[in-house]
Amino acid sequence: MKKFKRVAIIGVGLIGGSIGLAIKKNRLADEVIGIGRHQNSIKKALKFKAIDRGTIDVQEGVSGAEFVIIATPVGAIVPVVRSIASCLKAETIITDTGSTKKEIVRQIENLLSPDIYFVGSHPMAGSEKHGVESAKPELFRDSVCLITKTPHTKRGVLQIVSQFWNSIGCSRVRFLSPSDHDIIIARVSHLPHIVATALVNSVDKKDLSFASGGFKDTTRIASSDPRMWVDICMSNSKCILKSLNKFNKGIETLRKAISVKDTKLLMAEFGRAKRMREKLIV
Amino acid sequence: MKKFKRVAIIGVGLIGGSIGLAIKKNRLADEVIGIGRHQNSIKKALKFKAIDRGTIDVQEGVSGAEFVIIATPVGAIVPVVRSIASCLKAETIITDTGSTKKEIVRQIENLLSPDIYFVGSHPMAGSEKHGVESAKPELFRDSVCLITKTPHTKRGVLQIVSQFWNSIGCSRVRFLSPSDHDIIIARVSHLPHIVATALVNSVDKKDLSFASGGFKDTTRIASSDPRMWVDICMSNSKCILKSLNKFNKGIETLRKAISVKDTKLLMAEFGRAKRMREKLIV
Repeated sequence: MKKFKRVAIIGVGLIGGSIGLAIKKNRLADEVIGIGRHQNSIKKALKFKAIDRGTIDVQEGVSGAEFVIIATPVGAIVPVVRSIASCLKAETIITDTGSTKKEIVRQIENLLSPDIYFVGSHPMAGSEKHGVESAKPELFRDSVCLITKTPHTKRGVLQIVSQFWNSIGCSRVRFLSPSDHDIIIARVSHLPHIVATALVNSVDKKDLSFASGGFKDTTRIASSDPRMWVDICMSNSKCILKSLNKFNKGIETLRKAISVKDTKLLMAEFGRAKRMREKLIV
Repeated sequence: MKKFKRVAIIGVGLIGGSIGLAIKKNRLADEVIGIGRHQNSIKKALKFKAIDRGTIDVQEGVSGAEFVIIATPVGAIVPVVRSIASCLKAETIITDTGSTKKEIVRQIENLLSPDIYFVGSHPMAGSEKHGVESAKPELFRDSVCLITKTPHTKRGVLQIVSQFWNSIGCSRVRFLSPSDHDIIIARVSHLPHIVATALVNSVDKKDLSFASGGFKDTTRIASSDPRMWVDICMSNSKCILKSLNKFNKGIETLRKAISVKDTKLLMAEFGRAKRMREKLIV
């Protein structure tokens, strides 16, 4: 595994903080620089020992770094890269942790000079919590990390980024195109989030005391950070709307079956869902 | 706590089996009779020591029982009561474990003679598993049990049934009318089930390997027993359709906000869901 002299992490919340803790725990870098938007988040990241040194000046923070990890909300990733592009030394590797990839990868590949290497990452770990106070070095343990591959991606860089995620705990790294990523993740991550939100918003406050395990599980992700999800919805709107459309058709099939008491169709739909769900290893 | 001489449990699956195990563990009855539809389920219930004696003859099974618990799928509850009504001794108490209450309570109160007492129960515990092999005496520990109260309900009987659920582990017993029960449970239990089903059915098989914790949680209940859920949908169709209608409006609000890129509205909806979800103790 490559050991870095200096790694810069932009965004020191749950994800960025956990990456910092994991790098330090596994001694993957001589120095971890944290870059935050507020002094307060830098102070907290230092207190929790997620970084060695911190600054709110992003250009100063990335200077001299070999590896830059952008762990900001999705909407800030491209602007951040734009603001640091001219301060990076040749052969710097950049990756991100955003939940959408197509727009991000396209824009970043367009704006970087050829001697700066970007590979998009999406570590599929997280929590409905946020902030460096919830960060932990094991956040990525046994998780999947999706890495995007485009005609511009350098093989050696792909390998370094891929090994990095493995070395902080990801048990599986999978490569796919940015657009395939966004289609699939719209279905298995973005759509569930929207559905959970609508589900919570459809109950009355007084109903909550009657909620049991089923409701709790189904709606857990609805307590995630709203700003993060607005960003994701804006960045992957086309794929999300398409998956929502398919979901709505399924809901309409069930609604109609209940309405006309078509028990055969209901049985088939519930049975199909059961067989499908059981294919998932829990 | 009242100790029963003979308790009959009709339906010895996950719920009936767990009730049997809990009665025996807490020594709440001298004898537990299990009634199943097939010899095989009786054999299994005996093997797992969930019952003391078993039969597939429901009339023989309930004979001489002071307390009869019906733990069959929702659709079988009324027919079962109809078939045993004339075999019960005076002052027998009957309860059930069905997830819907209005139709069940109305029909049973109409068909029983005044010296047989029925109180509807809905222990809010369970699992996506089924069968007596998944039963356990602690299934009801710390769970809520909803008990229906109507103008026909005898206060003393209500107390006995309520104490029974407490004594097998339910930490809270709540009384409400059968129709209030069905309205609330449609929202917090039946709707989530339908939504989880449509969610699973909207993904492609090949997407499943990309599913992470969010998808797994949101769809866990979709692997429940299809027959049980067809019964529930038929028995509480009106309330389910109403809650589905409200949910659909919420989905449409989100869909439109994503489509026209109304980030302010999206932020408000995600924020509302987050605040609401955080009121739930997990």
